[in-house]
Amino acid sequence: MNSETTLKPYVIGLDLGGTNSVFGIVDSRGDIKATTAIKTQGYERVEDYVNASVEALQVIIDQVGGIDKIKAMGIGAPNGNYYTGTIEFAPNLSWGHNGVVPLADMFKERLGIPVALTNDANAAAIGEMTYGVARGMKNFIVLTLGTGVGSGIVINGQLVYGCDGFAGELGHVIMRRENGRSCGCGRNGCLEAYCSATGVARSARELLSTTEKPSLLREMDPEKITSLDVSIAAGKGDELALEVYRLTGEMLGEACADFAAFSSPEAFIFFGGLVKAGDLIMNPIKESYEKNVLPIFKGKAKFLVSGLDGASAAVLGASAIGWEI
Amino acid sequence: MNSETTLKPYVIGLDLGGTNSVFGIVDSRGDIKATTAIKTQGYERVEDYVNASVEALQVIIDQVGGIDKIKAMGIGAPNGNYYTGTIEFAPNLSWGHNGVVPLADMFKERLGIPVALTNDANAAAIGEMTYGVARGMKNFIVLTLGTGVGSGIVINGQLVYGCDGFAGELGHVIMRRENGRSCGCGRNGCLEAYCSATGVARSARELLSTTEKPSLLREMDPEKITSLDVSIAAGKGDELALEVYRLTGEMLGEACADFAAFSSPEAFIFFGGLVKAGDLIMNPIKESYEKNVLPIFKGKAKFLVSGLDGASAAVLGASAIGWEI
Repeated sequence: MNSETTLKPYVIGLDLGGTNSVFGIVDSRGDIKATTAIKTQGYERVEDYVNASVEALQVIIDQVGGIDKIKAMGIGAPNGNYYTGTIEFAPNLSWGHNGVVPLADMFKERLGIPVALTNDANAAAIGEMTYGVARGMKNFIVLTLGTGVGSGIVINGQLVYGCDGFAGELGHVIMRRENGRSCGCGRNGCLEAYCSATGVARSARELLSTTEKPSLLREMDPEKITSLDVSIAAGKGDELALEVYRLTGEMLGEACADFAAFSSPEAFIFFGGLVKAGDLIMNPIKESYEKNVLPIFKGKAKFLVSGLDGASAAVLGASAIGWEI
Repeated sequence: MNSETTLKPYVIGLDLGGTNSVFGIVDSRGDIKATTAIKTQGYERVEDYVNASVEALQVIIDQVGGIDKIKAMGIGAPNGNYYTGTIEFAPNLSWGHNGVVPLADMFKERLGIPVALTNDANAAAIGEMTYGVARGMKNFIVLTLGTGVGSGIVINGQLVYGCDGFAGELGHVIMRRENGRSCGCGRNGCLEAYCSATGVARSARELLSTTEKPSLLREMDPEKITSLDVSIAAGKGDELALEVYRLTGEMLGEACADFAAFSSPEAFIFFGGLVKAGDLIMNPIKESYEKNVLPIFKGKAKFLVSGLDGASAAVLGASAIGWEI
């Protein structure tokens, strides 16, 4: 660690979610020294949201010795654009759904420290590189399997933002060009429509209606089945639920094989709720990848589960952007 | 240009093809000052190939004022690995098909200047950035449509080599997961199986046998139809040939839409024989891209034809690697 890190040993991370905004003050090893949270919604104007944030932050900033101890702030937010520090047309934010919100500049002005912002999957990638399983890696891809499928791509040690700040939307590569499932983006056949939490629940419902396979899930109202129910059933050895994981892993492996042809990463790192199924999902991914990838890439890539602690992973990821400024 | 460029104003480019090896001495504006060539094949040992190369090179090196005027050498070669400067298991090279040939080091030792090597599509990308239509661009993708489909990807102003030097094999992303055409790589459904010169000829043969459409191509032996024949027929307004271009462009547009989700490039640049068809191929590519790409990327990317002069493009591309060392 250099002398600046000694003088300013902390960064602030903000995980800006649809429901909660969680703040953490983090040291260079990824230890969270103090944390606080506010509701994300319930503010009509972004100014009110920033006021409430700064008020909550002030308490934990004082706890670690004041703003002089803090190098920078990083924000992970939906529709976050790194180049401009803005949140753009975020559909789920009451104060951000119909315009471009210069959130990084607003926090910078109020706190007097540098502030950077990116989307949550990119924050996860920087987090893995700074504190997680990608330490020392220069080429890797993080796939976040949650409500949607997000991605953060690192090439030559740098996050890929592309020409407009929106690169790394691997949840929206097309995996089924014929009869593909409809996706939230308005198109059909996207990876996200199959391999997100909602995609997994949908796969379970499809298998329940198209096969006769006995399953614990048949006792439930099909419309109410979630990916968590599939996970619980799979944990009990339920064949239909295991088949859902096998199909999901198979498609993720096919997708990663195409991603290898693009950037030949050292590792694929998986993050999010689905990954809690462990080998039930990771083994099908690896098998499918090795079966589908171009011969020159066979056996080279690692398949890893996120090294960031689940509960605080998003805050750690966001904070890590602060070190990059 | 800096003072080193003034003292050493030239680089050597070597376009190492399956048949010919073409050398050029190039200045910083992309003007070729001298050129020579030898046969690539006909040497049993790589040492003999390098000897013949150096002998031919010496003549043109003397023409420009001697080796002291030359900064470096760049080589574009099939299966070239930038990281190691080696050609690895190149199936079409008599002296390079069954092992790893340290060609960059061999030339470096003989000429006493730095030598770098990469594959031909990567060389084309560096060439476009140095002398062509990508000057000033930091994020773009070059697709070479020739015997195969190759690619060179530039992100943040750097060529993407990946963890092993083999990134950028976009000809081998899978476009048809069911009933895909067999590809030279041993898999099925690759972009290359449809959008290379051989893929285009194959599409023509398929349409001739599966439709009743009248066509000039029906006068030929189907097995002898080449992409050049399709191009000539299309130029005459032949409907079947135009349909082949439409289908080819449609798939290229779909592929580029997926590539945008990866790296959101400022431009896609097309290079190679097929591009000579001009709007007949470029318009279907653009239309298909805009129809298929994720909404946030719509209308952003440029679709360009290579800015390098056809005959010398490969030598220029190879030489451009020399400036990067």
